[in-house]
Amino acid sequence: MRIDIATLFVEMCEAVMGESIIGRARAAGHIQVQCHNIRDYSPDPKHHRVDDSPYGGGKGMLMQPEPIYACYEDICRQSGSKPYVIYLSPQGKVFNQHKAKEMAKMDHILLLCGHYEGIDQRVIDEIVDEELSIGDYVLTGGELGALVVADAVCRLCPGVLPEEECFTQDSHWNGLLEYPQYTRPPVWHDREVPEILQSGHHGNIEAWRHQRSLENTLRKRPDLIKKARLDAKDKKYVEQLRAQIKAEKEAEEAAQQPEPASDREE
Amino acid sequence: MRIDIATLFVEMCEAVMGESIIGRARAAGHIQVQCHNIRDYSPDPKHHRVDDSPYGGGKGMLMQPEPIYACYEDICRQSGSKPYVIYLSPQGKVFNQHKAKEMAKMDHILLLCGHYEGIDQRVIDEIVDEELSIGDYVLTGGELGALVVADAVCRLCPGVLPEEECFTQDSHWNGLLEYPQYTRPPVWHDREVPEILQSGHHGNIEAWRHQRSLENTLRKRPDLIKKARLDAKDKKYVEQLRAQIKAEKEAEEAAQQPEPASDREE
Repeated sequence: MRIDIATLFVEMCEAVMGESIIGRARAAGHIQVQCHNIRDYSPDPKHHRVDDSPYGGGKGMLMQPEPIYACYEDICRQSGSKPYVIYLSPQGKVFNQHKAKEMAKMDHILLLCGHYEGIDQRVIDEIVDEELSIGDYVLTGGELGALVVADAVCRLCPGVLPEEECFTQDSHWNGLLEYPQYTRPPVWHDREVPEILQSGHHGNIEAWRHQRSLENTLRKRPDLIKKARLDAKDKKYVEQLRAQIKAEKEAEEAAQQPEPASDREE
Repeated sequence: MRIDIATLFVEMCEAVMGESIIGRARAAGHIQVQCHNIRDYSPDPKHHRVDDSPYGGGKGMLMQPEPIYACYEDICRQSGSKPYVIYLSPQGKVFNQHKAKEMAKMDHILLLCGHYEGIDQRVIDEIVDEELSIGDYVLTGGELGALVVADAVCRLCPGVLPEEECFTQDSHWNGLLEYPQYTRPPVWHDREVPEILQSGHHGNIEAWRHQRSLENTLRKRPDLIKKARLDAKDKKYVEQLRAQIKAEKEAEEAAQQPEPASDREE
């Protein structure tokens, strides 16, 4: 898998893609990541200018089509292949784990980062295969989006994570949130690690963790539980949890009600 | 506004928060951002260890509660205030622009980044006010999430963007996607800038842009158009667009159908 990032902020991208798990995977040759400065492709040799004001007026500057196109052509030439070009934009489809898995199967991806008020529509029309957004919020540029996509995709590539088990257990993989986790010390600030986790009984631990996953998902992201694949036993447990959560809520509301004076008579 | 980031990867965070718009806003004193290395708070003076294996077994390592807590206490001491503590986690509520606006009004936020397989649940229970996720995908650590939240929040703080207009026109602010934008040259790769944008007629340009916003939103993110506040004229235009898109789809489908032999008779 080769990922190219076309940006005005190469150092920022290199700092993120050079660290930790992704940095080690690059060094070991499991993935290839190259960051390119769009400014190097400016036709203006003196000021390396890449932006100009928008037609029709408006605040801010827009990235011109030619430097981006020249950068894209150079990447095609260098790599000998046409990358799948993704433009990070609030206009894109929202990126998710399913998309990450799809992209992890591709050979060559180019992540194009806009800055300022965006980029000229014509270069989007000419080279971009897909627009992606990492979420419904506005960022100062496309770099963080590109880095998020690159990170989520790279970690799914063979050899990047130490063992396959590490990512098959992760959140969103099976559609459920993770169970709570504990490490040493066994008692911290008067809080004890749940006894069952210290028991060494593998079957009980698995069952407890699966139930906590169901509970976490139901409490924190009920939208996900609707989409998760649950067996009959899971469904029964979820129904019990629903009843329990409802009872808790009612108890809480009752506690917030001022006690009626008549009750005090007894 | 003060934002602290507690992380194992200070350099990565500094590289992102030191660049471009956010870097300039920090230098000018509009926002205060401090990154802290959780490893500096390890009780192990020699190896600065901060992780250990999870109780109950499982692959990977977990961050221990004490170094995180000690880092949190030091931030409270340094700043003289208790920050609103956010833990970046796939278990969190999904971050969005509405949340960014809420957070931009706060005085002091601490973004806590987990790494490895996560952090001990007890320190989450003890210090974390809210868990946030930046989207439904899995990342190698919490840093990119923290940087995304910090970027989205900082750019809304007074003085960070050059003029207020810059962010009131952005995507997601009024619930619609942006219109396409164009800059010089007027013709590029045989593609011309739309004539209306070169006309100089301010009213027509505004109307064209607003219609393109509606069209972009309807074509790319129909889920957003349902939530957007539209006036009667907008609604009428959206209905026309819907009919047009439907006709386009039907024409496309018809073109893909093999031509029936009988039609060739004419």
